[in-house]
Parts: sequence; structure tokens; C-alpha cells
Amino acid sequence: MNAKEYRFDGSRKVCVKEMPTCAEPAAKKKECAAKTEANLAQCALLQEKLYAAGTEGLIIAIQARDAAGKDSLIKKVFGKLNPAALEVHSFKSPTKEELSHDYLWRLNRRLPARGKIGVFNRSHYEDVLVTRVHQMEKGYAMPERVIGDKSFYQKRYVQLKNWEQYLYENGYRMVKIFLNVGKDEQRRRFLDRMELPEKHWKLSINDMKERALWKEYDAAYEDAINHTATEESPWYVLPADDKWYTRYLMSEILLDVLTGMAPEYPPLDPAEAAKVPAAMAELEKPLE
Amino acid sequence: MNAKEYRFDGSRKVCVKEMPTCAEPAAKKKECAAKTEANLAQCALLQEKLYAAGTEGLIIAIQARDAAGKDSLIKKVFGKLNPAALEVHSFKSPTKEELSHDYLWRLNRRLPARGKIGVFNRSHYEDVLVTRVHQMEKGYAMPERVIGDKSFYQKRYVQLKNWEQYLYENGYRMVKIFLNVGKDEQRRRFLDRMELPEKHWKLSINDMKERALWKEYDAAYEDAINHTATEESPWYVLPADDKWYTRYLMSEILLDVLTGMAPEYPPLDPAEAAKVPAAMAELEKPLE
Repeated sequence: MNAKEYRFDGSRKVCVKEMPTCAEPAAKKKECAAKTEANLAQCALLQEKLYAAGTEGLIIAIQARDAAGKDSLIKKVFGKLNPAALEVHSFKSPTKEELSHDYLWRLNRRLPARGKIGVFNRSHYEDVLVTRVHQMEKGYAMPERVIGDKSFYQKRYVQLKNWEQYLYENGYRMVKIFLNVGKDEQRRRFLDRMELPEKHWKLSINDMKERALWKEYDAAYEDAINHTATEESPWYVLPADDKWYTRYLMSEILLDVLTGMAPEYPPLDPAEAAKVPAAMAELEKPLE
Repeated sequence: MNAKEYRFDGSRKVCVKEMPTCAEPAAKKKECAAKTEANLAQCALLQEKLYAAGTEGLIIAIQARDAAGKDSLIKKVFGKLNPAALEVHSFKSPTKEELSHDYLWRLNRRLPARGKIGVFNRSHYEDVLVTRVHQMEKGYAMPERVIGDKSFYQKRYVQLKNWEQYLYENGYRMVKIFLNVGKDEQRRRFLDRMELPEKHWKLSINDMKERALWKEYDAAYEDAINHTATEESPWYVLPADDKWYTRYLMSEILLDVLTGMAPEYPPLDPAEAAKVPAAMAELEKPLE
């Protein structure tokens, strides 16, 4: 029941299809739920200090197959934090304007200020996942030296690693989450979306096409994770079939990274401190 | 009279105080002015193709000491291009919002779309020039692991090089210009600003402080150029005392890079082409 088991920081390779999609047998739902709540309460306290200090930012990038539970994870876990110091950004199919710029352009525009937590619902990894599986780069309006380059994706892995390293060196931390849902559980969730009227808004028959490319996505995730997992910007491959367990792990990870950042309330500025006695005396005067 | 003499692409080191600040003795003003005009006319044609193709972008980053002529260079040279496919961005002292993000944030927000030319009046290099000379990083709201790092600027040079390499690999070219004005010429221009009412708007007595740090800026420019000059994103250290000569060199550099990009009008889409005969017949009908 330790989140570290699902962590990849470059010290070992991941093989996606060998990673569990269900909760550990020993994990108990009720116990995990209680632990999740306690963890998130601590996270909220640390978030307040992070915000007050304003020196370091945190980015949580969440990637997953369809119906793996990104939206509900964000609602249930990050919904427990102060929304004033939190930003959620969803990255959908790039717009025409986004496609006319470099692929990190839309990400860079949405980086949180230091002191805040930014949650990316899908992220810069879309540009080495869905684009790779569908060879979308071939159709991009870019010079032949770029789109004809056989190392196109190898270069992107290096670019992503450099970008994340740059952010780390400039006062940010990043954690990357892959919600690993099983093929059978995805089937069940798709059927729910087809059958239940309150889930119709989530239904896209087009998602079936991506389901047919399961192995291709396995390979793309593996390459992306193995090329970009580092100590400073680690990946977590989390089992996603049991939502209570995923939430629990996410709360552990969040608490771990926030604890590591060790935010502190900033001390009172000496110039302000010098003015305190007079201000206190003023406040203590009897009301007229 | 070849701009290549002022080019630094990593194959040799620059020593700023050995670089000329005046026009070559052999250069003739009238001849250079005519060549500049012809070069820029060619540039404008290439710019149109670049815009039509929309596959590659160009960034010209201009750095200089005060009164070196950045503004007039932009007006006189880039003013000859089509403003619809050109963007000029001036980077002044960072705002509070900009300081609360990573230092490339404000640059990333202003990257031109592919097909356009972006001119940066001051640039990402401010963050290794003025900040370094004044050790501004010490006062930044960032964690101690960042601002206490002895390799702070060494890391920034690597970050800048990686960023420019990333842009190159994503369909952009960048050219970096250092307008090298002489100390005596700067003195004359400062006096003009103090004496001539129409130049008062350019006067900032504060600039005198930077003038006193001439050698410190020499060292900061040298380090920045020597660490970030590459074949793909070269630096040019241009003499800036004779504006007609600087403009001529800038026009040569611009023509050289645009020629190297070799933009072409995109061919007609076959589906559109198929519809042309019918459309022509329609247009040829006599007016009612």
C-alpha cells in the first residue's frame, strides 16, 4: 500500500502491461478512504503555506486512456484544496491557433504562478502519445527538416525532459500520473456511458477507435515514461480500476511531494514588525 | 563588408572589447544605403512566401546597451516588411506577474505563430545580463535551492541553449543581435537626449548607472554569447556607432536567414484545383 511501488524516477524501466490495474488485495476500502481524507487535510495546510510563501509551484500532469477516471480524480482529490491557490487546465485536441505555435506554447501559457498548484488534465505528453500512435506529425505544417526527421519522437522526449528540468531549476516541481485502467474495466465504463442518460455527456463513440489501439498506446506510454522519468519529475503508474484506491494513492503522492517542498509561512518583514507596537496601541484604544 | 565577420556560431569565442563599434573604413554610406534598400525589398518578398507557407517562424532577438539604437533599427529595417506578418515585442523590467512565473514565461507567451517574424526588443538574454550584473536573483522569490545555487547562471545558459534548440526543432529559427555601441558614441547620444527637447522622452538619468558598469556588462555579454552561440541560433555582434552601417548589416543578416529558410508558396490543394475549371467558367459568364 505504498505509493512508491508505482513510482518511476529513471532508476528502473516500466512495462505497462505488467503493472496492476486493481487495488492491492491487502488494501481495505474503508481504511483507505479514511487515510485519504486525513492526507488531504494535511495537504490543504501545506498548500496554504505554499501559497503564503509564493516561492515554489507544483504541477500535477494527469494522463490516461479514456474512462480511466481523470475527471473524477480531480474532483474528489483536488476538490479538497483551496481553489484560490489551485488551477485546473484541460488540454483537448489542439486548436488551429495552438497548432500554429510550438507544442509547448499552450502549456507555457497555463503554467501556474509560483505558490500555486496547477493540475493538467492531459498534458504535454499528448504530443508523444496520441500524435505518435496516429503519426499526426506527418500532417503538421512544419518544415520537412522537422516532420521528416526519423528521430522526431526521440527529440521530443529530450525536449520534454529539458523543459521539466528547466521548470525544476526555476522553482517548480512536477509529478506525472498515468492512470492505468484495465481493458475490461474500460469496457464496463463505456457500457455505462452508453446506457445511463446521466453519463451520455461523457460518451464519444470515437473513443472505441482508441480502444482498438490498446497495444500501440502501451508502447507509446512505455517509451514516454522510460525517457522522461527523473528523480525531480517522476512518473507514477497508478492502478485505476478501483477509484477509492487511486484516490488514496494520489493523496499519498500529493502529501509526499508537498512535504518534500517543506513550505513555510514567510516571516514578518522587519520594517513591518517595527510598526507593530504602535499599531497595537492604536487598536487597543477604547472605541469612541 | 561581410556580415559573417560579425557572426558567432560557437566555432570561435567573442571578446567584446576587441569588436569594432564603427563601420569598416572601406564601407561607403551611399552604397550601403542602396544595398540595404535592395536587400529589404528581397526580404519582403521572402516574408510573403514565409507567411503564405506558414510552416516556419523567425525570431530576431535584439540586445544592446542604452542608446545603442535598437528602436531606430527596428523602425528603419523591420518597418520595410509587411506588418501583418511581423510582431515586435518589447521586454522591459518584468512586472510582478511576470516575476511570479519562470523567466521564459513572458517570452513563450509572445512567440510568433509559424509563418511570422517576431522581433524581440530586449529578450530572454536580459535574464543573464542585467540580472547578473546586479545579482538580482538574490532577491527573487524562489527556493534557496535555486537562488543559492552557485551555478545559477551556468544553468541559465544551458536552459537558454536548450530552449532555442527546442524552438529550432519545432519549426523556428532565431538570430540574436548585440548592437555594440562605443562608450564615446553613447556619451554623445546621452548628451543629445539631455539637450534636445524632442529626445527628452528617451532620457533616463538612471541609465548613467549602467554606463558606470561598462566592464561588467562586457563580461556578462561575453559569457552569454560564448555559451549560447550555435550554428542554428547564432549571435551577431554588430558595430552600432554608424547607424547606416548597422542597418546594412541587419539587412544582410535578414536576407541570409530568410534565403536559408527557402520559403515557397504552397501548391494549390488538389481538391480545390479540381473545382477551378467550373469556377472559371462561372466567372467568365457575361455580367447581367
